[in-house]
Amino acid sequence: MAPAADEILGIHLIADLAAQGPLDDPARIETMLVEAAAAARVRLLEVRLHHFGDGQGVTGVALLAESHISVHSWPERALAAVDIFVCGAHADPQAALEVIRAHLDATILRRLEVPRLGRP
Amino acid sequence: MAPAADEILGIHLIADLAAQGPLDDPARIETMLVEAAAAARVRLLEVRLHHFGDGQGVTGVALLAESHISVHSWPERALAAVDIFVCGAHADPQAALEVIRAHLDATILRRLEVPRLGRP
Repeated sequence: MAPAADEILGIHLIADLAAQGPLDDPARIETMLVEAAAAARVRLLEVRLHHFGDGQGVTGVALLAESHISVHSWPERALAAVDIFVCGAHADPQAALEVIRAHLDATILRRLEVPRLGRP
Repeated sequence: MAPAADEILGIHLIADLAAQGPLDDPARIETMLVEAAAAARVRLLEVRLHHFGDGQGVTGVALLAESHISVHSWPERALAAVDIFVCGAHADPQAALEVIRAHLDATILRRLEVPRLGRP
């Protein structure tokens, strides 16, 4: 069944950040993702992390019962790309973004809110 | 170092699909993600899958050296949400989307191409 005209299945916050925080530290990014999921009031299934080497970036994905949160970091440029895609009326993606912004000591360069799977 | 004015670090394709294909089959979604990464000419780090139960949806994420590809499915609605976020001039996100569209026997309801970490 397609969603009704005024229904959406999820909200996807896209944010590009200029960050002074621990962009090359997978343990701190893992903690950040766990706290972001809690702030968003979603159920965390697992966090997966890849660190591309000393002083290099980290890819971190939190798989959620309500979709995902991802962070990709470029410490050499002090940049991070964040996606917070959450479904359900109870979820609070903006709270997750604020947790991530604070952990990374970041300024939001760009923020885009995309309704997913509703009418465009 | 911030990117130059005309530089972007990645392209993020967002696509919402109406799909007749195997939205409740994690093994087929895993194969699809592997083939999508190959089509995009990116390096796959790992695929993680969660199946929410018989006849229910799947969350699948392909972690890439160049960011990620994710699929969330709702078989009860015949809908899927796809994200293809790839960095590097060699990557071809559209080719990955076409692989996913074909695997899921899908129509693209909405497609949005977001440059990441460049100037808005």
